[in-house]
Amino acid sequence: MNNQQNPKAIIVIFGATGDLAKRKLFPSIYRLYQSGKISEDFAVIGLARRSWSNEILRDKVGESIEDAFSSREDLEHFKSHFYYQSFDVTDSGSYQGLNDLILELEGMYHTEGNRIFYLAMAPEFFGTIAINLKTYCLKDNAGWARLVIEKPFGHDLPSAQLLNNQIREAFDEDQIYRIDHYLGKEMVQNIEVIRFANGIFEHLWNNRFISNIQVTSSESLGVEDRARYYDHSGATRDMVQNHMLQMVALLAMEPPIKLTTDEIRSEKIKALRAIRPIKSDEVDESFVRGQYDDGVLNGEQLHGYREEAEELANSNTETYVAGKIMIDNFRWAGIPFYIRTGKRMAEKSINIVVEFKDIPMNLYHQDESDRNPNLLVINIQPNEGITLYLNAKKTGHGSVAQPIQLSYNNNGAHSINTPEAYEKLLYDCMLGDATNFTHWDEVAYSWSYIDSILQAWEKKEPDFPNYASGSMGPKEADELLEKNGHHWWSIT
Amino acid sequence: MNNQQNPKAIIVIFGATGDLAKRKLFPSIYRLYQSGKISEDFAVIGLARRSWSNEILRDKVGESIEDAFSSREDLEHFKSHFYYQSFDVTDSGSYQGLNDLILELEGMYHTEGNRIFYLAMAPEFFGTIAINLKTYCLKDNAGWARLVIEKPFGHDLPSAQLLNNQIREAFDEDQIYRIDHYLGKEMVQNIEVIRFANGIFEHLWNNRFISNIQVTSSESLGVEDRARYYDHSGATRDMVQNHMLQMVALLAMEPPIKLTTDEIRSEKIKALRAIRPIKSDEVDESFVRGQYDDGVLNGEQLHGYREEAEELANSNTETYVAGKIMIDNFRWAGIPFYIRTGKRMAEKSINIVVEFKDIPMNLYHQDESDRNPNLLVINIQPNEGITLYLNAKKTGHGSVAQPIQLSYNNNGAHSINTPEAYEKLLYDCMLGDATNFTHWDEVAYSWSYIDSILQAWEKKEPDFPNYASGSMGPKEADELLEKNGHHWWSIT
Repeated sequence: MNNQQNPKAIIVIFGATGDLAKRKLFPSIYRLYQSGKISEDFAVIGLARRSWSNEILRDKVGESIEDAFSSREDLEHFKSHFYYQSFDVTDSGSYQGLNDLILELEGMYHTEGNRIFYLAMAPEFFGTIAINLKTYCLKDNAGWARLVIEKPFGHDLPSAQLLNNQIREAFDEDQIYRIDHYLGKEMVQNIEVIRFANGIFEHLWNNRFISNIQVTSSESLGVEDRARYYDHSGATRDMVQNHMLQMVALLAMEPPIKLTTDEIRSEKIKALRAIRPIKSDEVDESFVRGQYDDGVLNGEQLHGYREEAEELANSNTETYVAGKIMIDNFRWAGIPFYIRTGKRMAEKSINIVVEFKDIPMNLYHQDESDRNPNLLVINIQPNEGITLYLNAKKTGHGSVAQPIQLSYNNNGAHSINTPEAYEKLLYDCMLGDATNFTHWDEVAYSWSYIDSILQAWEKKEPDFPNYASGSMGPKEADELLEKNGHHWWSIT
Repeated sequence: MNNQQNPKAIIVIFGATGDLAKRKLFPSIYRLYQSGKISEDFAVIGLARRSWSNEILRDKVGESIEDAFSSREDLEHFKSHFYYQSFDVTDSGSYQGLNDLILELEGMYHTEGNRIFYLAMAPEFFGTIAINLKTYCLKDNAGWARLVIEKPFGHDLPSAQLLNNQIREAFDEDQIYRIDHYLGKEMVQNIEVIRFANGIFEHLWNNRFISNIQVTSSESLGVEDRARYYDHSGATRDMVQNHMLQMVALLAMEPPIKLTTDEIRSEKIKALRAIRPIKSDEVDESFVRGQYDDGVLNGEQLHGYREEAEELANSNTETYVAGKIMIDNFRWAGIPFYIRTGKRMAEKSINIVVEFKDIPMNLYHQDESDRNPNLLVINIQPNEGITLYLNAKKTGHGSVAQPIQLSYNNNGAHSINTPEAYEKLLYDCMLGDATNFTHWDEVAYSWSYIDSILQAWEKKEPDFPNYASGSMGPKEADELLEKNGHHWWSIT
């Protein structure tokens, strides 16, 4: 897959004046350039409504890289690859102008006609842009054309389907790269390797040896300045439909026949397809929603969600969701996958805890409650690493077991060189490797799963706010696990 | 078992002027005293041929403790518990004198008639002493009486049997504490806990998931000043009959019903009984002997074994032995336990490597030879800890697996408080816990196993010397594993 190591392309960024371009895309392109992964044969066209010039864009690019550049000359040369065009997504002239600019730059930069169209902007225009790119012949290029789409991909299954149909009028499925930046994270990509490259884990990775799996993505931040977007979306659409279910799919999938995009995606889809649908009258048994109240975090007094902005005063949007996902196949029958994600929680952390079933007989503990099951913890963020919780002999006289931790920390010597998620995903896209992007079928199954939850919730007014800022969520989320004799592992 | 936490006893040490008493026993008794495990109700009687006085013994005790004592006053008080008597093991007067002294001290120290007889001296007198202790009524005491015996316990099965018969004339099996100081080592005691207190390992601990197990005890020292004893013994008697086979038994045993002495010993005996006997004409297929030649270790030029002392000039004694042990039971059929031990090897280390079978299919490596099987390494000495060798994703683009290590280091904050093997074993003996001492049946099975090896070797002159000082042994030891497609893991 990585046979072509120095891809050449024109990268067209829709939404070049936005936050994502500045925080993630420009720095990622720079690091790819700096590390030699892309050569001189590339150009970036920034598009947005504002009347910026090439110079303004280049200044912004420079700012976004800050002091990561090696020399001033280097940076100037790098920035010279960037071009700006003021753009109206509904205006034919904009597309014709873009076409002219691309053709000009393709001559200058020898990019062999390869084009990436990166939609880093408001989702309501995704369909329009895709269709217009085809209409105005921007896809009649000599090389390959790829469309990169940021989340959200729809608001529910019907809207996602509509969007997909629009995009598919212009692009084939294998030309579409749906970004889920969690899939670019080093330790998320590691799930597969940990599972399939280790003799001991693959044997244990099933309902005979695993008791339950817990996936947590907690944020300490609140809604910040995304109130309008967020209130329309909520934690379930914003986090569960994509990131959380993707991690569940990676944890649950069967070993692929080969490590090809198709084989891996097909196994992930199979896992998503095996998730037991939630009946609308049973949602409360499996899912818990929450909205943060005021509270204290790291000594700071914080407002509740409804006080964050005027328009949120009566909001019933969930800022927290916890759920029990059951996967009905031979490997996982009976084993819950617990997920939880939310804002204003006690800490910022993404991690996976695999709780193994206990030894058949308790030899070492006076009390059954002293047992410590083995845990495999995959730390995704902020720490990157793997920790195995085992029991060993307590030092000294007698035979008493105590929990110990075997740790591998990925934030070591190489951490400076660890590529950021966006850098890897952008490079994958340039190489034509769609493995770490979501296939439409994955999107569709995910929406259909959460739609029934959201619909049930809409029918019943929640008792919000129901968790304090700085806590780990509402008490119902703890009760969700207690029903099965489990509890959330706090692994920091 | 540990119900009586402050045992009271008179400890009689035969061989109190010797090396073991000074290096191990006095300091161990001091640490037990200092940590409160034994109270004021104890006395130590040192016996040996030399005409020392109480004062000389007490001085030696003081020296052996060096600066471990907390205050000078403390030390003086501790030393006052020590008494010396000049002793001839074949002279009735000596035993009568000992009896008088014990009775006197039992009155002074309120030891409730409990007596430990610790044989820390030349093995040829073990039988005589045991019988005389009975003859002269030293066992007619009000409390318990226990006999602690140091290695070697015999020179082969018949001599061990003879010795055991002599001892058993005076002491019951449950009064006999045969020391194997490896069984007092923290990480050797941990084998059981690692196996039986962890859900994941006990499932993997069999021939379906384990490829082979390697037990190494290497010394960098040569024969030093033990030439006479060592040349009569050799590595097989000195190390394999006891320490190495004990570790194999702990690794191979079935889970005991309870953690009682009887249950654990009975499982160990069962494991030893399941070891496939070596036929005399097949020894070369399973065992390799070696004797060190000259060589260089840490920049130092070293002599070969035969040059170490005049009497060794023509020695055919093995200073190294490696072997493949097969255990014919359902759990281990087909899985070799490799052992190796020797002097003048590249490093001083005791460790166990459990090599797991590989994943059924190689997804991540170009080349089959790039596979890295999972290893569980138990470091016993000099480092104490557990390391699990896994594979994880190589940081960066693409899906390539690389070996990583998850480590737990026991030499941490608690290492100052880690009791030494002898301290634990002496305390166990005072508490009447014989779990970490070897039962006669274990001794007998071990001797019968190695006798056939030694007999075959005696019939054939070895090609000694055959390994360089500072190496990891003769090349035949590598070939022993290569025949099965294995190799020794170097884990430092």
